[in-house]
Amino acid sequence: MPYAEIISIGDELLIGQVINTNAAWIGQQLSDAGITVRQHTVISDNEKQILETLRKAAPSAALIVITGGLGPTRDDITKAALCKYFDTKLVLHEASLENIMHLYQVRGYPMSKLNREQAEIPESCTAFRNLHGTAPGMWFEKAGVIYVSLPGVPFEMKPILTDHVLPRLRERFGGHAIIHKTVLTQGVGESFIAEKIRDWEDRLPAHIKLAYLPQPGIVRLRLSGYGSDKGALHAEMQEQLKRLRTLLSDLVFGYDEDTLEDVTGRMLLKLGKTLVTAESCTGGYLSHRITAVPGSSAYYRGSIIAYSNEVKINILGVNADLIEAHGAVSEQVVSNMALNVRKLLNADFALAVSGIAGPAGGSEQKPVGTTWIALASEKEVVAEVFHLGEDRGRNIHKAALSALNILRKALLKELPPM
Amino acid sequence: MPYAEIISIGDELLIGQVINTNAAWIGQQLSDAGITVRQHTVISDNEKQILETLRKAAPSAALIVITGGLGPTRDDITKAALCKYFDTKLVLHEASLENIMHLYQVRGYPMSKLNREQAEIPESCTAFRNLHGTAPGMWFEKAGVIYVSLPGVPFEMKPILTDHVLPRLRERFGGHAIIHKTVLTQGVGESFIAEKIRDWEDRLPAHIKLAYLPQPGIVRLRLSGYGSDKGALHAEMQEQLKRLRTLLSDLVFGYDEDTLEDVTGRMLLKLGKTLVTAESCTGGYLSHRITAVPGSSAYYRGSIIAYSNEVKINILGVNADLIEAHGAVSEQVVSNMALNVRKLLNADFALAVSGIAGPAGGSEQKPVGTTWIALASEKEVVAEVFHLGEDRGRNIHKAALSALNILRKALLKELPPM
Repeated sequence: MPYAEIISIGDELLIGQVINTNAAWIGQQLSDAGITVRQHTVISDNEKQILETLRKAAPSAALIVITGGLGPTRDDITKAALCKYFDTKLVLHEASLENIMHLYQVRGYPMSKLNREQAEIPESCTAFRNLHGTAPGMWFEKAGVIYVSLPGVPFEMKPILTDHVLPRLRERFGGHAIIHKTVLTQGVGESFIAEKIRDWEDRLPAHIKLAYLPQPGIVRLRLSGYGSDKGALHAEMQEQLKRLRTLLSDLVFGYDEDTLEDVTGRMLLKLGKTLVTAESCTGGYLSHRITAVPGSSAYYRGSIIAYSNEVKINILGVNADLIEAHGAVSEQVVSNMALNVRKLLNADFALAVSGIAGPAGGSEQKPVGTTWIALASEKEVVAEVFHLGEDRGRNIHKAALSALNILRKALLKELPPM
Repeated sequence: MPYAEIISIGDELLIGQVINTNAAWIGQQLSDAGITVRQHTVISDNEKQILETLRKAAPSAALIVITGGLGPTRDDITKAALCKYFDTKLVLHEASLENIMHLYQVRGYPMSKLNREQAEIPESCTAFRNLHGTAPGMWFEKAGVIYVSLPGVPFEMKPILTDHVLPRLRERFGGHAIIHKTVLTQGVGESFIAEKIRDWEDRLPAHIKLAYLPQPGIVRLRLSGYGSDKGALHAEMQEQLKRLRTLLSDLVFGYDEDTLEDVTGRMLLKLGKTLVTAESCTGGYLSHRITAVPGSSAYYRGSIIAYSNEVKINILGVNADLIEAHGAVSEQVVSNMALNVRKLLNADFALAVSGIAGPAGGSEQKPVGTTWIALASEKEVVAEVFHLGEDRGRNIHKAALSALNILRKALLKELPPM
């Protein structure tokens, strides 16, 4: 299988002023095209380092994709370094000059000498038109390795890769299939899942690999399959996913880019049901997650953020005696919040959250992280306690995810089996 | 000056499933500590490649920072590779075991064998406690090069680097002074600011550099000073910052890691005033930003998220005729929301937001992005309209920032001049 390396050039990446999203995006595209990405490298705008990095990468790569350092200013030296590496010289490229003149005409700016120099490219390369900027893409071949040099501005780089580079790569490296599929779970830890699926994992064929990708409150399981026949690989992956799904049962809330708010939103739409919330410790974050979904106004009506006990009592109508007797973070109060907000805002389902997000407010009986979540429906009110962690931001995040997951499990029971 | 290389391990980075924010963040921290970052490298969870990469990096680096591959599951092989590289073996580390047991106790989960194995570390390393996870940080030295291995989860990695690694590095590589200071503005564009400060920028000395770092709704101006005498450099930077501050006046809301919710929160505390909100299009995000600040319960009481008109009318008491006559996104309705929620939740100040976040809901008169924001105080209600953009997520984000900035400017008038 062909290996690729992605080299990104730019000091702004090294000091973290800009995050290297280019390498991630190119990695995705190459991977989808059946090319295995073996390494990303970020280096300085420094000729010696560029040459060294190319020399080190060449022996183990079939493809080297370089981004950055193609701008018109003095600190952009990739083109000169490539001339040295390929032992060639800069020549004026008529089509690129026309493209640059066209761009300046459209924008109504005068063209400078620096811009004109952007049309000079190494003689031995094939140039690709840049629709959105002055630096063309370039394709070189040397000793069986393909080198592609692209501008660093994502908006300029992406169409060149998509329109010119990927079709040529598919032609050259066709016949390799890679399929990734990610299974998403909420509410349990990585090692809990690992123990549950150990036997299945042990029996996975060598060309299907499993990776655990934990995030706060969520564990993602990525299954990557490698083969030559895309159809056969797809069928095999589906079979393995079915087995995994059976083992994990309702721990799985979705796939790939799904979120809990998407998934529960789609379920509410399908059922024709509405949702409201009442939040204390999550302070609006649960409501924000729900309303981040376009079209959520079709099923979500609103929330009471009862951050103070006064709002819990006066607006939500929580019995002051309940708060006095059990504390605001208790089964009794959170159930009362869910029950009342459902009626008050007139919905089918109501989620309520009350917890101690921290850093202050904890006690021995109720340490920071203690969080009660209730779900009220026409039938009943159920409440559950969670012991999250010590970090305020993560507690808010995990509490919202846990609430959405409680809703998801309740909605699952109402939906016909898939 | 010492050179560093950052090595990130993980297939999820290579295929672009996760963007390498770790390397950017570590690059920033090292750069702030006066260490020049020469290269970032991303490689696979593959023992041979890990060993090869370490061997290649060692000759030109004083420091190698490795992240990732330290989890409890089978695909995490960094620890085994490090044992091979440093020719050492895994031994049980009592302090790490205690830390893991503590974490599991707090969360109330049972500990598995896999978790216990997380306490085994290479014998030749110094271990640093991981406050938020089971994999400790590790520090090795070999042939004059420092190697630091950290977990890949950003939340676990960052405190280990900040608390343990950076202080040791500063001790080791002291003597170079780099000072970064970032000035934060909200509400105007990069080029507006550039014109305002052009003369000052032209006269900056060569060893003080300015960078513009625009984010949605916010423009950050980073001033970086380089020198050998930290005290003199500090005084010089302060003088330049004072000039910049004078030029930008109340466009500046804070410095470095400040946020609008921190800044307005501190102002409310100082004034002894309270705040409530009523949100439509921001759907809880404004409230979430405010309550993300620890201790915000001292000044923030709560919010009504009136996502549906029914909630606006029945709970917030907005006059239905106003909505009928002017639409929910109007000066009249948003002013009414602010006025009513201030009384209902009993606070000194009330912010209300009503807008069209998109993608649907726009019209010719009120395109997507049209957003009304009102601030009610004891004295008055003022409302302002914003024309944000076409992206839902960004509109929600910018609307919340704009609301907080309106509050900040109003509170500025109540505070004695600094």
